[in-house]
Amino acid sequence: MGVKFLTRMYEKYTLIIIGLDGVAEPTILKVLKPPAVDFKKGVVLSRRAPIWLYCFLVHYYHPTRFIAIFDPRIGGAVVVESHIVEFREGDIIEIGLDA
Amino acid sequence: MGVKFLTRMYEKYTLIIIGLDGVAEPTILKVLKPPAVDFKKGVVLSRRAPIWLYCFLVHYYHPTRFIAIFDPRIGGAVVVESHIVEFREGDIIEIGLDA
Repeated sequence: MGVKFLTRMYEKYTLIIIGLDGVAEPTILKVLKPPAVDFKKGVVLSRRAPIWLYCFLVHYYHPTRFIAIFDPRIGGAVVVESHIVEFREGDIIEIGLDA
Repeated sequence: MGVKFLTRMYEKYTLIIIGLDGVAEPTILKVLKPPAVDFKKGVVLSRRAPIWLYCFLVHYYHPTRFIAIFDPRIGGAVVVESHIVEFREGDIIEIGLDA
């Protein structure tokens, strides 16, 4: 089992697309190396993964400007934490369907 | 729509059971008041909720000793962040089935 990441840079955030190869086991968190990002931007996390993997990544990327979670039901990314006034918790960031 | 929380105190953590009344909308994050906990213990989050709600709560409870996410597939709670050596990221905390 492995976790792979694809990143796409946008003006205000890095989109991180999570790719699971099989079923994720929690021990992956002991060795996981999330991708480097520009900490002067935000991070948007996307795709299907266990909640605990998302929560681990939210903690990992805490120093970035903001973190948002893409929700396909909503069709946008929900801001869950932010250090800037432009985006506040609960805001929706419009993201293309390719997220 | 509303989000309710039940809490149960254990020796090393507070179990927070998330209860959704309908479908959670992201704007709830602008007014949500998560339950008070003992910051000298950890927090375990449980039950079905959107990933962005979990991620918001992980950020909110960041000052606690550790945070773990109950995963019914695993039958335990996966540690996603920790400030103590007893629990490390990726560890599983055994939790009763009533979580």
